[in-house]
Parts: sequence; C-alpha cells; structure tokens
Amino acid sequence: MARWEPGARERLVVAAVDLFTEQGYDATTVAQIAERAGITRSTFFRHFADKREVLVAGQETLSTLLADGIREAPADAGPLDAVAAGLERASSEMGQTSRELGPRIKAAVAASTELQERDALKTVGLAAAATAALVERGLPSPTAHLAAEIGVLAFKQGFSQWSEAAHDDGKPLSHYALAALAELRTATATLS
Amino acid sequence: MARWEPGARERLVVAAVDLFTEQGYDATTVAQIAERAGITRSTFFRHFADKREVLVAGQETLSTLLADGIREAPADAGPLDAVAAGLERASSEMGQTSRELGPRIKAAVAASTELQERDALKTVGLAAAATAALVERGLPSPTAHLAAEIGVLAFKQGFSQWSEAAHDDGKPLSHYALAALAELRTATATLS
Repeated sequence: MARWEPGARERLVVAAVDLFTEQGYDATTVAQIAERAGITRSTFFRHFADKREVLVAGQETLSTLLADGIREAPADAGPLDAVAAGLERASSEMGQTSRELGPRIKAAVAASTELQERDALKTVGLAAAATAALVERGLPSPTAHLAAEIGVLAFKQGFSQWSEAAHDDGKPLSHYALAALAELRTATATLS
Repeated sequence: MARWEPGARERLVVAAVDLFTEQGYDATTVAQIAERAGITRSTFFRHFADKREVLVAGQETLSTLLADGIREAPADAGPLDAVAAGLERASSEMGQTSRELGPRIKAAVAASTELQERDALKTVGLAAAATAALVERGLPSPTAHLAAEIGVLAFKQGFSQWSEAAHDDGKPLSHYALAALAELRTATATLS
C-alpha cells in the first residue's frame, strides 16, 4: 500500500462523521473509522492524533488562514475590513465536502461533552490568532480583541447558515461569512 | 466526621491548585487533593465531579449571576449597560480567595490541554448565558451576541488585572471588570 493515498484525509473525515452520527462518538474507535474509510490504522495516525482531531483538525488551518488574511490586508484597511480579508481567506479553504459535513459535525459535537470542549478550545484559538494578527497591524489591544471576536462570530454564524442553506445555491462560504460580518458591524454602531 | 464541613469546598480548591502547581495537573489525584485539604474522598465527591471541576466549577455560578444581572437590569438600560449590571452581579461572587488563586489557576490551566479545553467550554457557556439573557431583553441576535462577547472579554480581562494587581488595593473585581468594559465600549466606537 502506498504511503500517501490521495483523498485519504477526506475519506477519514467522512467515515468518522458517519460513524459518530450512526453509533455515537464514544462508541466509535479509530479502527472502525479506518475500516469504514478503507484505510489502514497507521494511515489514520499519519493524518490525525486521535479520533477527536478528525472533527477539529481543520480548525488549525483555519486559524492560520484567518490570521494571514488579516495580516496581509492593505495597510490602510480598518480593523473590520482586515477581518473581512481574513474571513475571505479562511472561507476559501472550505469546499462542498465541508458544507455537506457541517450539520452532521454539529450534531456529533452537540452530543459529546468531550467534543464540545475540544471545539471550544479551537474557537478560543481562532480568536487568539485573529487578535495577534490585529495587534501586529498596530491596533490597540481592546480594539484587536473586539474585532477578533466579531470575526469569529461572523465565521461561525456564516458557516452555520451556509451549511444549513440549500447546497446548490452556488454561494461560497465567504458570501455568508461576510454577510454575518456586515450584520455585526451594524450592531456595533447601536452599541457605542 | 460531620457530613457538612464549613469551608470544605474552599479548602479543596486551595489544595488542588497548590498540588497542580507543585507537581502538575496530570500527576495529581483526587485522593491527594482530599488528603492535602484534610477532607475525605467522599466529601470531595459531594463538592466536585472530578479533579477538573475543582478549577472551573465556580464558572457555572458565574454564568447564572451574569445572566441574572443582565435580565434584571432596568428595562430602559442599553445593551452594554445591562452587561455592566451582569458584570457587577457576577463580580460580587469573587472574594479575596478567588483573587489570590487567580494567577495560580491561570498557571495550572496554561500547563494542561485538558484544563484548557474545559476552561474554553466554560467561557463559551458564559457567552451563551449572556446572549440568551440579552435576547430575552428583546435585543436582535447580532447585537445580543456582540454585547455578550464584550461582556465575557471584560470579565476575563478584569479578572486577570484584578488578580495581578496589588491585592491590598482595596478594589473589588467589579472595579476592574467595569473599567475593561468601558475600554471595550470605546473600542466599539472606533469600529463602526
């Protein structure tokens, strides 16, 4: 068997989410996930540290992309414009498979405290990465924290709406994330 | 031994944090925590489900107080004024022991992924409780989410500053939390 199998990672995610949904997270083993995906156990461990990672590993890539987009936005972009650039960059990573898995991943997370904890930590990590990138742009700490939390809220709301909408609407995740950001931007005006 | 021991809960928290700091979280057992606190193992389990809960159990009370304060703020209070009322209510629960334990708890959490995950979930829970209370006040969802995140940021920043400042400054947590909220309120004005 080749050491590198194209699509192995994606097949493992689909298999894991199917098994978590069918029989619950706790009852699912790494061996079952690998078998369902038609992949060896050792290949599983080349992609993921454990079964929890299957659902949240992508979020590290997301953090990096979000921060890169913010960092590389034009120097004269305002805080929320830089956040918008970060959301576009992060959204570009999420294709149709992510969209289809969204509601099933959500259900699996909702049913397991362990997954909720891991998921919450990754959300906090996303906010921290965005905050650091905004501070690098020279923003004062409270503004950076606030803009970062707004970005994370927009990403989560956008993702949720995108994966619940009709999947043939032809709209990328960025459409929903940027719409959520615009809504939150309007909300900030009512607060100050 | 009496079934109810005054101060048992507080003694368990102090003992647990001391042991986590001395020998690490993973190496610490419930039996050791109980022994250090001079309390039986079964008394431990009347107060906490497991050793992780020792550090974060108080956050459930915090969520309730934060939400109650928001809910019971005057009907004509703006979103961030309601959040301020919630912060005052939640802060009232935190006395000198919490203040002294703050930096040690922070160190223990920073050193353990397991504790970080649990801590992150409680932060998410705090935001969810505040959001729900703000929605009950009739606020639209984006405003409620945003004001809730601002409240959680203010609480966390305020707590961090309070527990790092000179402990004889005579200032309650609410002083620091409300100052952090005022700073974030100013920051919202620069965003919109």
